[in-house]
Amino acid sequence: MAESGLLTRREVLGSILKSSAVVAISSSVAAAQSSQASSAVEDLVAANHILAQQGILDGYGHVSVRHDTASGRYLLSRSLAPALVTAADIQQYDLDSSPLGPAAQPSFVERFIHGEIYRVRSDVHAVVHSHTPSLIPFGVTGAPLRPLYHMTAFVGEGVPVFEIRQARGNDPKMLMLVHNPALGRALAETLGSKPAALMRGHGAVIVGSSLPQVVGRSVYLALNATLQAQAMSLGGSINYLDPQEAREEIPDHYQRAWELWKRQAQEAGCARPAAGGK
Amino acid sequence: MAESGLLTRREVLGSILKSSAVVAISSSVAAAQSSQASSAVEDLVAANHILAQQGILDGYGHVSVRHDTASGRYLLSRSLAPALVTAADIQQYDLDSSPLGPAAQPSFVERFIHGEIYRVRSDVHAVVHSHTPSLIPFGVTGAPLRPLYHMTAFVGEGVPVFEIRQARGNDPKMLMLVHNPALGRALAETLGSKPAALMRGHGAVIVGSSLPQVVGRSVYLALNATLQAQAMSLGGSINYLDPQEAREEIPDHYQRAWELWKRQAQEAGCARPAAGGK
Amino acid sequence: MAESGLLTRREVLGSILKSSAVVAISSSVAAAQSSQASSAVEDLVAANHILAQQGILDGYGHVSVRHDTASGRYLLSRSLAPALVTAADIQQYDLDSSPLGPAAQPSFVERFIHGEIYRVRSDVHAVVHSHTPSLIPFGVTGAPLRPLYHMTAFVGEGVPVFEIRQARGNDPKMLMLVHNPALGRALAETLGSKPAALMRGHGAVIVGSSLPQVVGRSVYLALNATLQAQAMSLGGSINYLDPQEAREEIPDHYQRAWELWKRQAQEAGCARPAAGGK
Amino acid sequence: MAESGLLTRREVLGSILKSSAVVAISSSVAAAQSSQASSAVEDLVAANHILAQQGILDGYGHVSVRHDTASGRYLLSRSLAPALVTAADIQQYDLDSSPLGPAAQPSFVERFIHGEIYRVRSDVHAVVHSHTPSLIPFGVTGAPLRPLYHMTAFVGEGVPVFEIRQARGNDPKMLMLVHNPALGRALAETLGSKPAALMRGHGAVIVGSSLPQVVGRSVYLALNATLQAQAMSLGGSINYLDPQEAREEIPDHYQRAWELWKRQAQEAGCARPAAGGK
Repeated sequence: MAESGLLTRREVLGSILKSSAVVAISSSVAAAQSSQASSAVEDLVAANHILAQQGILDGYGHVSVRHDTASGRYLLSRSLAPALVTAADIQQYDLDSSPLGPAAQPSFVERFIHGEIYRVRSDVHAVVHSHTPSLIPFGVTGAPLRPLYHMTAFVGEGVPVFEIRQARGNDPKMLMLVHNPALGRALAETLGSKPAALMRGHGAVIVGSSLPQVVGRSVYLALNATLQAQAMSLGGSINYLDPQEAREEIPDHYQRAWELWKRQAQEAGCARPAAGGK
Repeated sequence: MAESGLLTRREVLGSILKSSAVVAISSSVAAAQSSQASSAVEDLVAANHILAQQGILDGYGHVSVRHDTASGRYLLSRSLAPALVTAADIQQYDLDSSPLGPAAQPSFVERFIHGEIYRVRSDVHAVVHSHTPSLIPFGVTGAPLRPLYHMTAFVGEGVPVFEIRQARGNDPKMLMLVHNPALGRALAETLGSKPAALMRGHGAVIVGSSLPQVVGRSVYLALNATLQAQAMSLGGSINYLDPQEAREEIPDHYQRAWELWKRQAQEAGCARPAAGGK
Repeated sequence: MAESGLLTRREVLGSILKSSAVVAISSSVAAAQSSQASSAVEDLVAANHILAQQGILDGYGHVSVRHDTASGRYLLSRSLAPALVTAADIQQYDLDSSPLGPAAQPSFVERFIHGEIYRVRSDVHAVVHSHTPSLIPFGVTGAPLRPLYHMTAFVGEGVPVFEIRQARGNDPKMLMLVHNPALGRALAETLGSKPAALMRGHGAVIVGSSLPQVVGRSVYLALNATLQAQAMSLGGSINYLDPQEAREEIPDHYQRAWELWKRQAQEAGCARPAAGGK
Repeated sequence: MAESGLLTRREVLGSILKSSAVVAISSSVAAAQSSQASSAVEDLVAANHILAQQGILDGYGHVSVRHDTASGRYLLSRSLAPALVTAADIQQYDLDSSPLGPAAQPSFVERFIHGEIYRVRSDVHAVVHSHTPSLIPFGVTGAPLRPLYHMTAFVGEGVPVFEIRQARGNDPKMLMLVHNPALGRALAETLGSKPAALMRGHGAVIVGSSLPQVVGRSVYLALNATLQAQAMSLGGSINYLDPQEAREEIPDHYQRAWELWKRQAQEAGCARPAAGGK
């Protein structure tokens, strides 16, 4: 126990992780349902904590992973701030984004982002939806986000911008949120075969073939946005990666960074950089 | 006890919170005075710590909450840095901003901001006065602060700027401070029915229907200011939320973020991001 | 002892502070020398730690205080990073900036900044010399640093810029450093009766009537520089404080912030924000 | 043990450092091979941690030191995030960048940067290769990086930019990486006799006569880039250090900062500023 007498997240997490196999089993709808390996649950919990600690997600936004044996399902936390997610909060969803099992817990309103992308992109195994600060300005101006260096070569073919005004029609509620399958499909269509799309006045969606890759892409795309704005402010033209250079992504798919970030998130508890003052 | 041999704020806070009911009672002027529920005191202490840890308040600025049963009163800390506030520092004030009870402790000079807004805005139950860095530039230039994304939809009708030069007349002292009821009324008039107003050369006031809402609004308005400045620097026009989109605030009124921030503030002690160097 | 088996700075500091009276006595050259009250030494140690933790000083820069009973002396650390300073590192200097007592320890090369300002400014009781990042751009461009809000009203009469090229003549060594009394006098002359001066290609000097005041001025001047650059980037004219408004400094001379910062520096150990990456 | 039940990096590091002499011996290829003094290994581990904590390196980038008695060798970590490096991860390489001894561990792909610079620059005893954020914009625009203040006088003769397009020819793989000796030689040629070179779309290389110097240069060059961009945004011309002023580097070669940073890195564990969100 911490000296304050409160249980820290790490303590809680520690206890929970030890029993994650049990959790996975007890939350299965039936014996027939393939239970997700506990390592996938642990990795998804780690991805939540890393994205929070790296400033990619704050109290909002979410990360999911496709079920590793049942490709028609994905794993996602119940509606909760990513920094606070534990293994017990992870639920399974089908591609209609309906929760499987005894899901008494509230789901994210925008879970359809995940389901509809998994449905049409068989290459995608992990999805992040974020309100990452540095990406917001590029979603509301005409300035295209482009790769400044090899860490973000993956966006060499450009980052499309999703305009929800065109997709929502006359739907009178939750105007800015992807709160049903049709809006999820529209977003997936804007994304196309790309690794990322911005969402005007809202945030972004980033996809990858694994959790380490989607986390690495999220961190470095955010950093690229900051650096691109700085480069633009220096005046003159910018030497972005050329199409050939942008064909080649970072060789280890951010695995080395993933190992580091996991350690840092464990040491940091639920702390992350303050969101607002400056 | 911490290893340094000093009592940490958390330890002090822990002891104090346990006795907060006692504090509330002993500070009541009379048995007839309705004592504020200790949960309101605890929430106000948490709001102080969150706003400090998120970089919205530093050594200065304050947050108050309307009394939950006596609408003609509000709760506010004695004059103290928000990060250091404990339950024992919370006082009750009437709408003239006179302290109730045995108030031997000094009050904030600018408490009239709170009293005069509560007087004319029955919908308001929580008020923040801040010197939040990112808001200062928008208060001293003609650039209007506008909602860049759904997290700040609440300012869709604009953020007025309070010009104290017009309100203070020939008052020769504390020229920049809202140090009496008349100045508080002038500020409340500028605020009108809006959720926030900037104060030229000084800071801002943000209001809400609850502490979680006013804290969330304060954090995301500060972040919006930073991002809007960045978007402006990219050149070209900016797609702000349209009036219809701005009618709809964030569905949970920042409750999910509030739970996270409370945890982060507890873990952080009185630490917060450094104010100045860069 | 910390869990790593190393003594932390706090532990070392704790032991040292307990024996600070002893230290002060044992470092006196003679019984006739008035020993500085240990509270002044403690405050100077605190000022060092605060300025480091707030990002005003990094491995370089220094803060001094005039002796409280012998006005012809001042106290300054030996040459050491401010975050690491303890009571045992504080030395006394005369106004020629010669160390008093058995000063086997190396002194700061630029201690003449302090001595020469104390000599001509009887109102000054504390001096900071810094390389604060946000101030550097204002020292190398024609952009004048001006008060954006009431927290920095003290620079309402402007901040002069010291150009060492004019003062150093043909001195062939340490071209950028105030390394002798003549250069210190030239800097003091540029400062005049003002509270602060920038040093082109180098940093700044800030003065005050007490340690809390000079620390508060240093923190908020740095923040003002950041915010002024942001305001300038928004375009259009800026409403700086007018001369009348700038006559009035912050009423508590930053005492409330000082109490907070002392607590934060104690909790933070020698940590401070990283200097460089972004 | 930390309260979480996990071994912290400090604990692991502590155990390892105690046995570093053993490690150095056991990793020697033969009794004839001069074993690097354990202090050099400790300093290299410290340099890794400092550069991570100061935000100069993240999960990627590396720092090396020339062997102190065998000038045809250098020391470099195996492929690992710098914040996680311990003495057991340090390997010896010859100037062809082939690992000496039982090197079962993977090496950095870009180790040729180090070997080829040591080969042609006998004055160089330490090399940093980084993706430092603030340097990236200067590598992709025409804006030359120049010394704003005395802390970066060392770049007074300019910072060349390495364009790998010209060096790689028709090599079809790892287009952006210095993955063979020929590319290392081309980079060393661009560097010439300078202390630093930018790498377009990639990062930078910084060299020095010692680890404290190369670390100090890396930190302050990154900060200079940030401040130069800010100065440029203020408009008007900039007073850079003149050639005479830039002849004189910081007198202590950043030794004072090195002592501070070592302490800060020890206290911080593997934490470092988050990379991305803002």
